Amino acid sequence: MTKMHRVTIVGGGFGGLHAALSLKQVPVQVILIDQRNFHLFQPLLYQVATGGLSPADIASPLRLVLSRHHNVSVVLGEVVGIDPVRRVLGLKNQDGALTEQPYDTLVVSTGSRHHYFGNDVWEPWAPGLKSIEDATTIRSRLLAAFEYAESEPDPNRVRSYLTFVVVGAGPTGVELAGTLAELARDTLRHDFRRIDPANARIVIVERADRVLSSYPHRLSARAHKSLERLGVEVRLNSTVLQIQSGLVILKESFGEETIRAENIIWAAGVKPSPLGSLLAQHADAELDSSGRVVVKPDLTIGNHPEILVIGDLAFCFDRNGRPLPAVAPVAIQQGKYVAKLIRGRLTNRPISPFRYRNFGNMATIGRHAAVVDLGWIKFSGYAAWTFWLFVHLMYLVGFENRLLVLVQWAWNYITHNRSARLITEHVRLTGPRADRETQRLDVSDRARPR
Amino acid sequence: MTKMHRVTIVGGGFGGLHAALSLKQVPVQVILIDQRNFHLFQPLLYQVATGGLSPADIASPLRLVLSRHHNVSVVLGEVVGIDPVRRVLGLKNQDGALTEQPYDTLVVSTGSRHHYFGNDVWEPWAPGLKSIEDATTIRSRLLAAFEYAESEPDPNRVRSYLTFVVVGAGPTGVELAGTLAELARDTLRHDFRRIDPANARIVIVERADRVLSSYPHRLSARAHKSLERLGVEVRLNSTVLQIQSGLVILKESFGEETIRAENIIWAAGVKPSPLGSLLAQHADAELDSSGRVVVKPDLTIGNHPEILVIGDLAFCFDRNGRPLPAVAPVAIQQGKYVAKLIRGRLTNRPISPFRYRNFGNMATIGRHAAVVDLGWIKFSGYAAWTFWLFVHLMYLVGFENRLLVLVQWAWNYITHNRSARLITEHVRLTGPRADRETQRLDVSDRARPR
Repeated sequence: MTKMHRVTIVGGGFGGLHAALSLKQVPVQVILIDQRNFHLFQPLLYQVATGGLSPADIASPLRLVLSRHHNVSVVLGEVVGIDPVRRVLGLKNQDGALTEQPYDTLVVSTGSRHHYFGNDVWEPWAPGLKSIEDATTIRSRLLAAFEYAESEPDPNRVRSYLTFVVVGAGPTGVELAGTLAELARDTLRHDFRRIDPANARIVIVERADRVLSSYPHRLSARAHKSLERLGVEVRLNSTVLQIQSGLVILKESFGEETIRAENIIWAAGVKPSPLGSLLAQHADAELDSSGRVVVKPDLTIGNHPEILVIGDLAFCFDRNGRPLPAVAPVAIQQGKYVAKLIRGRLTNRPISPFRYRNFGNMATIGRHAAVVDLGWIKFSGYAAWTFWLFVHLMYLVGFENRLLVLVQWAWNYITHNRSARLITEHVRLTGPRADRETQRLDVSDRARPR
Repeated sequence: MTKMHRVTIVGGGFGGLHAALSLKQVPVQVILIDQRNFHLFQPLLYQVATGGLSPADIASPLRLVLSRHHNVSVVLGEVVGIDPVRRVLGLKNQDGALTEQPYDTLVVSTGSRHHYFGNDVWEPWAPGLKSIEDATTIRSRLLAAFEYAESEPDPNRVRSYLTFVVVGAGPTGVELAGTLAELARDTLRHDFRRIDPANARIVIVERADRVLSSYPHRLSARAHKSLERLGVEVRLNSTVLQIQSGLVILKESFGEETIRAENIIWAAGVKPSPLGSLLAQHADAELDSSGRVVVKPDLTIGNHPEILVIGDLAFCFDRNGRPLPAVAPVAIQQGKYVAKLIRGRLTNRPISPFRYRNFGNMATIGRHAAVVDLGWIKFSGYAAWTFWLFVHLMYLVGFENRLLVLVQWAWNYITHNRSARLITEHVRLTGPRADRETQRLDVSDRARPR
């Protein structure tokens, strides 16, 4: 018996998971490495952050999803090194022990992280939304702000508690701001006795001259209008100069403006996972200016046809020479392509280069409102919203998750409620009151411009 | 207009929440104080700990539950003092500020905490199951043990990862051990490639001579048999002498025995909330030996007819002179009674003493198996299991929660699965391996017998 070809996949997100799933009928041994034990449906993470869904609704245990895929082993650990000559990865497992993980073909699909454009010190004051823990932390902070406001005598501080700033008006930022507005104006309407949550101020800040700047202009305009209808303050051409405990300083056309807000959420930028530079260092991978790995049309790198990079970490052109966006459909299609390529290699069948089929983009902005751009048709409003719901349910992994999300959406829709509103972490909001949080204020002092 | 009578309720568990709900039609102003923003359905907490349900399924935001109860204000904070002469509570709110909260009638319903019988140093090695955070921590630790075992070369350590010890065979311990056995032997069956989860060893340790010692003997015997059928090792007349990182030492009839186990779960004892001693110190409340507040037949204390204590914190006799058990139905009925009493006082109608109507006890031990004791009838098996499901769904707060739990139970039942199996915390299991966890081992050293 010959030794089976070993495909090692790093990352259980959209790309890696779909690669593993698509290799089911291929006679290879598959190792799927991830730091977490679940696949996360990131496009709905903002609904966890706003109390509409529970973490488990949008997370599927990798072992569960792959339990009937007998050629796949799931390994939990972090890749910390690579030796492309010996074809082994250095793997740090959960208790810190280092082991080697060999591969014949390597698929790297480790996505991206938040990116503060050199201002990492902002992170404690403006958390991003990438992981389940990010989502439950933000959820706790958002809800705690209303609680603090309810028991706060000082009206200036109440104002600060009830001000929410979302930095970045891409799909995540827009969806988050819209949902936040609904939470304040609708869901929490009857819940407080001293404050009126409807008075909450929600600001979305965007550097570009329109929201959803990667979408067609007409849809940006619609989304903008939808946000304003929900009472969201949209700031375009606005740059964040500084974020500190409880305040954000913006550079506007009319000068600098300081907004005091206990909740600032970062939805502005991502950077590629550190595996990119590992590949550049050890396997001569070429990186683009943002740190993504430049891949060939068949998603391999430089002199290593046995190393494939897919998903957000890969920099790849479409047929028209435009770079592919960092979205789930690209990663999924690349994952499937990788499986096809590997099968082709085993049977010596040539496989044509990867070609992305763009089925479109969309974003939702609260109840009944969404924008959809399918290329051949662009629409918004109620139909777009229904379409958005349908597509998201379809792409969720696991029938039970689909059912649970459907039940909760239906319930939220009927009752205007969001029942996963749990403050599950000890939250200390961090406003500029001199007599508290000295330790944290130290950190923010260091963050001041020099 | 006369000032409205102010009822301040401390604790949003079963007792406090039902008191607040039952005061809806009573012309009083109600303040409900809790440290958390949600009511927790504790009887199903073990299902969160074993990945069957999500936290939000068994937690209901207090403001949501009470949003239409316009005479109720929810206040988040911790009661740290009481002045029964001026009738004010000292309240520490979330950012540490102290305020005063006045009352005309005070209802204290703050329940109980874990109790390690003087061995609080055991807590890090044997977490208890009282809060949502406890449940998600235990869930992460249980699931991580299987993950660690999968990648562990040393068979002794694999054994230790796959050994689970539950201390205490009351309803929580029995339900937890049963579910754990199902998780290992059934749910995770196809999930691993190197280990066989079915080989997991699950031990339940009980000081008394039978499991469920507060139930009739026949039901204890049935529960015992059900546990053994699931492959749970039942240790009766067994005392915990010592718990350290990764091991528990038991005193058995045949001598001492050491079990190496990375997961030890404490389900053995609770102690009343610290508010009991606050009442004893400042309001002359009498405490029983375990620290519960001894209440009169109308649930008031000593010389303070305006202070009522209910739920697990209260020590109260039934008509036959037996103390009432610390279970949810007692707290719920006492909460309702308190509302009736307050209404009676306002209208000068005398109210007869509190009388507990015992509808029975029950526990479930895995699929299809449960024991039910309704006093007039005792039964077990499939019928008892169905009855258990029905009653728990009925008592869950909120229709949406009932629906979500029902969907997940049905799904789990059909597919033998539990999909909320997320490791959401960074878990370091803490076995006795010299080269790791030095900081933690320091703590365990201090815990050694002197």
